[in-house]
Amino acid sequence: MAVIDFRLRPPVKGFLDMVMYSKAERRDGITRQHGMEPAPSAQAQSMDQLLAEMDAGGITQGVVVGRSSGLYGSVSNQDVADIVAAWPGRFIGVGSVDPSDRRRALAQIDEALALGLKAINLEPGAYEQPLYADERRLYPIYAYCEDKSIPVSIMAGGSAGPDLSYTHPMHVDRVAADFPDLRIAITHGAWPWVHEILHVAFRRPNVYLSPDQYLCNLPGMDDYIRAANGFLADRFLYASSYPFIGAKIYADWFRALPLRRELLPRLMHANAVRFLGLSG
Amino acid sequence: MAVIDFRLRPPVKGFLDMVMYSKAERRDGITRQHGMEPAPSAQAQSMDQLLAEMDAGGITQGVVVGRSSGLYGSVSNQDVADIVAAWPGRFIGVGSVDPSDRRRALAQIDEALALGLKAINLEPGAYEQPLYADERRLYPIYAYCEDKSIPVSIMAGGSAGPDLSYTHPMHVDRVAADFPDLRIAITHGAWPWVHEILHVAFRRPNVYLSPDQYLCNLPGMDDYIRAANGFLADRFLYASSYPFIGAKIYADWFRALPLRRELLPRLMHANAVRFLGLSG
Amino acid sequence: MAVIDFRLRPPVKGFLDMVMYSKAERRDGITRQHGMEPAPSAQAQSMDQLLAEMDAGGITQGVVVGRSSGLYGSVSNQDVADIVAAWPGRFIGVGSVDPSDRRRALAQIDEALALGLKAINLEPGAYEQPLYADERRLYPIYAYCEDKSIPVSIMAGGSAGPDLSYTHPMHVDRVAADFPDLRIAITHGAWPWVHEILHVAFRRPNVYLSPDQYLCNLPGMDDYIRAANGFLADRFLYASSYPFIGAKIYADWFRALPLRRELLPRLMHANAVRFLGLSG
Repeated sequence: MAVIDFRLRPPVKGFLDMVMYSKAERRDGITRQHGMEPAPSAQAQSMDQLLAEMDAGGITQGVVVGRSSGLYGSVSNQDVADIVAAWPGRFIGVGSVDPSDRRRALAQIDEALALGLKAINLEPGAYEQPLYADERRLYPIYAYCEDKSIPVSIMAGGSAGPDLSYTHPMHVDRVAADFPDLRIAITHGAWPWVHEILHVAFRRPNVYLSPDQYLCNLPGMDDYIRAANGFLADRFLYASSYPFIGAKIYADWFRALPLRRELLPRLMHANAVRFLGLSG
Repeated sequence: MAVIDFRLRPPVKGFLDMVMYSKAERRDGITRQHGMEPAPSAQAQSMDQLLAEMDAGGITQGVVVGRSSGLYGSVSNQDVADIVAAWPGRFIGVGSVDPSDRRRALAQIDEALALGLKAINLEPGAYEQPLYADERRLYPIYAYCEDKSIPVSIMAGGSAGPDLSYTHPMHVDRVAADFPDLRIAITHGAWPWVHEILHVAFRRPNVYLSPDQYLCNLPGMDDYIRAANGFLADRFLYASSYPFIGAKIYADWFRALPLRRELLPRLMHANAVRFLGLSG
Repeated sequence: MAVIDFRLRPPVKGFLDMVMYSKAERRDGITRQHGMEPAPSAQAQSMDQLLAEMDAGGITQGVVVGRSSGLYGSVSNQDVADIVAAWPGRFIGVGSVDPSDRRRALAQIDEALALGLKAINLEPGAYEQPLYADERRLYPIYAYCEDKSIPVSIMAGGSAGPDLSYTHPMHVDRVAADFPDLRIAITHGAWPWVHEILHVAFRRPNVYLSPDQYLCNLPGMDDYIRAANGFLADRFLYASSYPFIGAKIYADWFRALPLRRELLPRLMHANAVRFLGLSG
């Protein structure tokens, strides 16, 4: 069974400058708050080990997500494209933009697509000047992506912003309503707003949900699972949020959850293929 | 055991013009998101079949709720009264008002009572111009109903409004505090704000809660059930939200929930009798 | 095993004027909403009985929390200190302040410390003029306590305010971010905002959480327990919220919860010792 890990930041290139690698102790502390042990590959910053862990965990491909963030560091779209090229078939690239200049942001989207990247990642609460997801300055980007059928992932959960208000699902609810043909993936599962984001997904058929690391031994996980077993079965996206949780560690843990066996191919692969518009 | 289904819109008169019947595909899609199959009577738009399903499900009476809504269509109070009259003893009528003109709204309440209707239904987020439940324009209506001991149901859950903010329990919390003698039933259970509305019900003895279809295989259902088995036992209102869930289908499903057997007569009947001020 | 009950208001001195004792019927109604029976000592207003119940429940010490509240009545810091002195070793005192005059509030803090009290209790939503926890008028108090390493407990859950908005964890999230070296205990567990406050505690290492009576047979309790068994194990504070729940009744009930046995010394004692800066 093919598996796509929808959020995986490998220990290479610009990622090594980000806090998830440059502050290893902070990262491992978060990992342990989830009740997990750090991945050897993350601690060793070893691509070879990561690929071996992906193999051992049955992870066919990882979605490498760029970032343009004041708070957590940045990874260029070129870096993401280089990673995809360096290990053919193992990674899928997602680009990022700087939303502070709308014209440059749209140009960055075109550049990202030209580099072969498959979606655009926005992290509204983590920009130099934090934004809410329904901030008007993001609307030209949403409009452009809707018109060109470019899927958008929005980091709107966990510590995505200076305070709890930035992850409130009301913001993405409005975006999903205003751009009904835009495919939107909410990464970090809008945690802790579990009931609320599941309502948004229940109501808005263009919303996909990826609780990723915030599924992991946290309050609300039973509700994510209930939804994945029910109405969300075709829009749940499997993701480890590596390096916060190891790719194999997460895969083993995920397969042991009370999920309906026959849904795993959708949850772990087919939904990501459809969301990203891949052939296959 | 007598059973009152607190929210049931039969396939007849003005209801047939509403989206719940005119857009059957949308309705059945929602039904299936709940993990349920559509009711034959809903698909056939057959009153005879509905009555047979009510009988088979042990539903003594259904509360027929009018609606005055820009978004989802309207059903007149006269229509509701006609339905009550046409099938004696099977239905209890609840009227609706247009809150945009406060004088006319109060006149509509008087007319509804004169027609024999037992409560007033408000759907703040679904009006032509959507309102929050604590919007000042609704306060003359609340005041009038409190002074005349008229129970009020408020649709404040699910898709009751343009976005998630309209169902936020803060709004009904303020109404319940400002009108402590007003009996208020929250329909659609304020879903997805499960913990928050249960706090409101815990704190405000004038608040009744009817999760209806949003109890049905959705995240948060365990918490509704825990409350129904505990502090909410005298203020939980059983409802199928027919035609979204079949009357018999819901009844069978509900009776299989881990609810304390001795509470079922309250949850499924006595609480509605008390809320509506019926004799016995 | 030593046990500290982090919130316990004994039937003596100023406490007897507060609604929790002066309105016994209201209090017992709340107790029964939790599915519990009132404590004999609370009904008899007997210190001897309370001490016997503490002994029977294995409660070594109780944290006696003062209050400066328009809504629920007040207890002076002197009263709290007198209680601590009258039963040596059985109680730990926490003082309160009136935040309406910042200079007087800081003087009250100094006076409380001079009386031997160990922390300052704030109840923003319950003041004569209700405040949100991130209201600017509280910031001089937070700054003073952070600079002097004085732990602060904030009542931000349950009915702590005129409406549901006052307990919203966004407010304490901002306080915890703005004063990262301030130890903060959220009493009443920020209920009903269970997922949201657990996110705040997950993200902010200076936040301790005490669900106290709101853990008790209410929706969300499973999530509090999951957190206490996981990332919150070193920052969960055991508390009965006596007289709302009996000290022994709560202790017996708590010990029967599905908590990891080896964590009980931390949850019921060591965390409170560390939070309060006691010598162990």
